[in-house]
Amino acid sequence: MQNIKLTIGYDGSRYHGFQLQKNAITVQERLEKAIHTVFGNPVRVNSAGRTDSGVHAEGQVVNFHSSSQIPIERIPYALNSVLPSDIVVDRAEKVSEMFHARYSAVSKVYTYTIDNAPHPRVLARHYALHLRGTLELALMKKAAITLLGNHDFSSFMGSASSVKTTVRHLSRLNVDDSDGFIIITAEANGFLYNMVRIIVGTLVEVGRGKREPDLQTLLKAKNRNVAGRTVSPHGLILREVKYS
Amino acid sequence: MQNIKLTIGYDGSRYHGFQLQKNAITVQERLEKAIHTVFGNPVRVNSAGRTDSGVHAEGQVVNFHSSSQIPIERIPYALNSVLPSDIVVDRAEKVSEMFHARYSAVSKVYTYTIDNAPHPRVLARHYALHLRGTLELALMKKAAITLLGNHDFSSFMGSASSVKTTVRHLSRLNVDDSDGFIIITAEANGFLYNMVRIIVGTLVEVGRGKREPDLQTLLKAKNRNVAGRTVSPHGLILREVKYS
Repeated sequence: MQNIKLTIGYDGSRYHGFQLQKNAITVQERLEKAIHTVFGNPVRVNSAGRTDSGVHAEGQVVNFHSSSQIPIERIPYALNSVLPSDIVVDRAEKVSEMFHARYSAVSKVYTYTIDNAPHPRVLARHYALHLRGTLELALMKKAAITLLGNHDFSSFMGSASSVKTTVRHLSRLNVDDSDGFIIITAEANGFLYNMVRIIVGTLVEVGRGKREPDLQTLLKAKNRNVAGRTVSPHGLILREVKYS
Repeated sequence: MQNIKLTIGYDGSRYHGFQLQKNAITVQERLEKAIHTVFGNPVRVNSAGRTDSGVHAEGQVVNFHSSSQIPIERIPYALNSVLPSDIVVDRAEKVSEMFHARYSAVSKVYTYTIDNAPHPRVLARHYALHLRGTLELALMKKAAITLLGNHDFSSFMGSASSVKTTVRHLSRLNVDDSDGFIIITAEANGFLYNMVRIIVGTLVEVGRGKREPDLQTLLKAKNRNVAGRTVSPHGLILREVKYS
């Protein structure tokens, strides 16, 4: 048996998230179906993490076990030939038996893109949230810094989630301007349910001057109600999963 | 009566080109319908140029005449509120009575994007043509220079087109690499039917070493059969129409 790691991208627009669901089309279902077709056996993949309905990925990682003899470098071509065009396998690698896409992950990197032009840039509309009006970048950057580090992020966790611990280490939270797009990059050892989208919603309120840029009081409150709104999923992209 | 100039963007994927057609949905039809709804009168718009089925725009220009009293700065908001999300009005301006979107234009700028990664970048798939394999940028740049200037471009014109003259002035033809995307920028005082797509198809053959980089012999032949293939419309974007 081989342990095979895949790096994949997908446009989440058509899918009810990554993870298998009854009565809804998900990325995992389509991917497992393609692997079954190509490898000849049903498989279950481990993913680095679920992405929500409508969230995109350029660097999602999964692993699965197979005794197939397909040359590893041919696997992306074979899978892409049967996958729909909105899911693409970028890379396949043989990894050690111990590798697990989720448990071996050291950190994940997400970006959230805001189109801050007066009218939406039409070709970016599926991958950027359009928000008009002034967003003060300097305030947003200042606020972002106050969230860095090891914290209980339960104020930034969507409801209906059960986790062992709500402490996460947020190692990067950058706010950058690129040609009228505001790109927020977040890296952590793990993210709580809706965490990036609630952080972005909170930073937007800071950028509009509706909220103080010191967000440490929100962390201390440990109460979802004190933080900002959960922004739309379509601006969120899972960029990279890092392994040691 | 006022002469109103609109700068618009659209995702051409769903449309049978810009120009009105019987029995097919076009950008012009949707735009004129929106103007009719907002202004209360039927109008006919002049466009800077047709774009083919599947071609996108970020800077298409149209003009039309109206006696409406809607404040000019409100027009984009009003039109965007009734347009489908894949057509966006970026700007409205009052212009002189003499202004005509096509006849007043000095030049047009198109870009064509090629995704040259081994596997398609999934989030770029609607706006970039995926071509794997080595494309020698240096050869493509060299070839591009040989097309610059005032020439009879009939070797680079699709069939089924009738024009007074096939001479055009190509003032810019750049080939740039941006993160594995090859972006070809073309600027001219006008373009023949399919001209950019045939130029790109020819440059691709040069980049693959299948064709000499001196394209002047193709210009001299004045024969469509000597040039390269017409590449897919979905990588083509009308970026800007320039006026004096």
